[in-house]
Amino acid sequence: MTHPQNADLSALQDRAGAEQELFELLRIPSVSADPAHAGDMTRAADFLQLKLQSLGFTARVDPTAGHPLVYAERLDAPGQPTVLIYGHYDVQPEAPLEEWVTPPFEPTVRDGRIYARGSTDDKGQAYAHVRGVELLLRAGPLPVNVKFLLEGEEEVGSPSLEAYLRDHAEELRADVIVISDGSRFAPDVPTVTYGLRGLSYVEIHVQGANRDLHSGSYGGAAPNPINALCEIISRLKDDQGRVTIPGFYDGAEELTQEERDMWAGLPHSDQDFAASIGASALPGEQGYSTLERLWARPTLDVNGIWGGYQGEGSKTVIPAKAGAKVSMRLVPGQDPERITRLIQEYVPTIAPQGAQVEVRALHGGQPVKVDLGNPFVQAADRALRRVYGKPAAFARGGGSIPIVADFRRILGAPVLLVDFGLNEDAPHSPNESFALEDYHNGILTSAALLQELGLQELGE
Amino acid sequence: MTHPQNADLSALQDRAGAEQELFELLRIPSVSADPAHAGDMTRAADFLQLKLQSLGFTARVDPTAGHPLVYAERLDAPGQPTVLIYGHYDVQPEAPLEEWVTPPFEPTVRDGRIYARGSTDDKGQAYAHVRGVELLLRAGPLPVNVKFLLEGEEEVGSPSLEAYLRDHAEELRADVIVISDGSRFAPDVPTVTYGLRGLSYVEIHVQGANRDLHSGSYGGAAPNPINALCEIISRLKDDQGRVTIPGFYDGAEELTQEERDMWAGLPHSDQDFAASIGASALPGEQGYSTLERLWARPTLDVNGIWGGYQGEGSKTVIPAKAGAKVSMRLVPGQDPERITRLIQEYVPTIAPQGAQVEVRALHGGQPVKVDLGNPFVQAADRALRRVYGKPAAFARGGGSIPIVADFRRILGAPVLLVDFGLNEDAPHSPNESFALEDYHNGILTSAALLQELGLQELGE
Repeated sequence: MTHPQNADLSALQDRAGAEQELFELLRIPSVSADPAHAGDMTRAADFLQLKLQSLGFTARVDPTAGHPLVYAERLDAPGQPTVLIYGHYDVQPEAPLEEWVTPPFEPTVRDGRIYARGSTDDKGQAYAHVRGVELLLRAGPLPVNVKFLLEGEEEVGSPSLEAYLRDHAEELRADVIVISDGSRFAPDVPTVTYGLRGLSYVEIHVQGANRDLHSGSYGGAAPNPINALCEIISRLKDDQGRVTIPGFYDGAEELTQEERDMWAGLPHSDQDFAASIGASALPGEQGYSTLERLWARPTLDVNGIWGGYQGEGSKTVIPAKAGAKVSMRLVPGQDPERITRLIQEYVPTIAPQGAQVEVRALHGGQPVKVDLGNPFVQAADRALRRVYGKPAAFARGGGSIPIVADFRRILGAPVLLVDFGLNEDAPHSPNESFALEDYHNGILTSAALLQELGLQELGE
Repeated sequence: MTHPQNADLSALQDRAGAEQELFELLRIPSVSADPAHAGDMTRAADFLQLKLQSLGFTARVDPTAGHPLVYAERLDAPGQPTVLIYGHYDVQPEAPLEEWVTPPFEPTVRDGRIYARGSTDDKGQAYAHVRGVELLLRAGPLPVNVKFLLEGEEEVGSPSLEAYLRDHAEELRADVIVISDGSRFAPDVPTVTYGLRGLSYVEIHVQGANRDLHSGSYGGAAPNPINALCEIISRLKDDQGRVTIPGFYDGAEELTQEERDMWAGLPHSDQDFAASIGASALPGEQGYSTLERLWARPTLDVNGIWGGYQGEGSKTVIPAKAGAKVSMRLVPGQDPERITRLIQEYVPTIAPQGAQVEVRALHGGQPVKVDLGNPFVQAADRALRRVYGKPAAFARGGGSIPIVADFRRILGAPVLLVDFGLNEDAPHSPNESFALEDYHNGILTSAALLQELGLQELGE
């Protein structure tokens, strides 16, 4: 299959203009966490509204309880798919400022990279879509209906987004949602992320006696809640690394052979991975490769534990209480609420004598996955092949991205994560950067993706 | 066996004088923890020195790096046993002052109890021995040689005592050491405590990766040091409540049938004991009663644990490190240093893959025990029978008292704990008190004990 569009699009690129405009946006210190930057938030939102209006979009800035959202749409293609592109214009705080080689809000190019706070996360990647639409408009009419939703609170947990999606569900309706706010698998690997794990996060509380006791006077007879908690936690997984909670794996989608083969072919080395985190081993569920365990297998990890004396030296106490935060990553087919209920039912059955336990639900997140056979996934693959000259890697993410689950749940459309950045861009760190090449490839990919999505039949 | 001495002693008692003098001592706010009371420490030491001199003792106040020690001796009985009586004249701080019904340093009698800071711990119990000697002197010459060592730093951990014992080992030489600084088993139970458990206290450190990781991105492959620590701790005891460390029980003295029978006869109810600490069960090593487990069986308790996120809400972190404080109570025959070495050798062998462990020795204490057949133990039994009209309970203590182990180790003499107080005296708490009856019985017991000790043959 040849794609003359690709050549056409490259020829129409205005790299200097795309860079200059992004730099303008990067100069606005839109730090959502800092109230002192409220005016900058508005400036950044206005900048995007004006730009999208200049591209023929109906665009507005919607206030929220926090920072405003920019919503824009251009619905030129009746009967064609509608694509909702999400991004965010807010950035992380710049601290520690002294570690920046050049100031965080004075974008500077060194060795082919744009150094600035927000360059990759997410102004650069979001703006690649704005410029992608602009590029496409130079080639002719838009082949799809396009909606933009650009929020200003992603770096503070998107507190207003869920309600906004619910309140505007009809207006935001789309056939597919595209988000570029993360990293490709590796520098030479164009990536579509088609699934994310979910989460069930609980707190386990154990009470022994009704007060702290002297371990000399009471040791050997008084229940020790820390020992009991360790016992409980050790019983939550077996020696094969499998979670022992009855029913935990019921309904959990197994990996397909296609996925296993695909991931086995990705450039990954257990040795390099372990070395990158300074680990002496990569323990986990037996029978699965590291990538399989990270992306498509449920896990159970203790995220925090406390009890008794934590200071210097020795205090001979049997504490009254101990507790732990325990989270389980979930895969498609596992419902967070059900899993939370299962662990709440199970822990009391494995609690040692004398341990009064309580399992409190803290937080949950749905796993999400787009079927690999979904035509929009195939369209993304074709778009990436055109831009990068190689097939896309189809990866999944081990973490939850709450907004992705919200989009999926509230708007009901599949979500494609097509990232242009890389881990080495150092989002959230000093000297965040974005390769110029990745930015321009992002613009090309966005345009190509909209073209390819336009080739899809609806209602499949 | 009749003991005419008993009647004699009672007739010689000067209850009013004994109370008035103790009240004088109690009025001195000798709070060792508070530098503002340095002058009061000296006043209390001087008071004791003068009193003992008035009883014909050679007495002096020895300075230390901290508060002074009072040393006194009256060696009237060549060829007879030498008894060293230890006590302390310093007291706990009085806070919270507002909870005291009457001021802590204005001794007040209510319902037959002396309310004052230090009334039971340890001025009242120590002074009972001073008055016991005085009582005995009224009856005739002392039947034994008597030495007093009264320190001023017990409530701050006796930092100067060990060196003092070493420096004065020859001068302090005794055949038996008597300490009254604790509680009888129960109100109607005169008690000799003839053993204490020892201690090995360690810290276990576990390292996984070299930094905190996101549990979404890494969960399922990165080693989790908290899970590993819980696994290690859960493996330190088996499902019978026995410690699994190889060699742990080697040499540990088993209970004799005599001890088991004796303790089975003590007024103890598991139900009441559990209720007193609000525990729903009293888990522990199978095959032993609660008192046996508390006094004569080794244990392993986690005294503190930490790792990861301990704040409010959910943080999805796999921490780099976790740690725990673990202490083992030891019984005679178990050497703390050896036990510490054993756990240091064992933990690495049970650490899960990817967990780098370190076991740091923090603290140790020797178990101590006087043989029940020891003639001094029998003398104490006879003295208590005379005063209380019933046989003594022979108990052990679950905790370590470091000074007891120091006396045993440095001076080489058996240590008898003959306590006059009760738990309900509330030492260290507001409204500390000491029953007048217990004080006067203490005086009688001290005198009777010295008489009975004088009947012992040396060199048995």
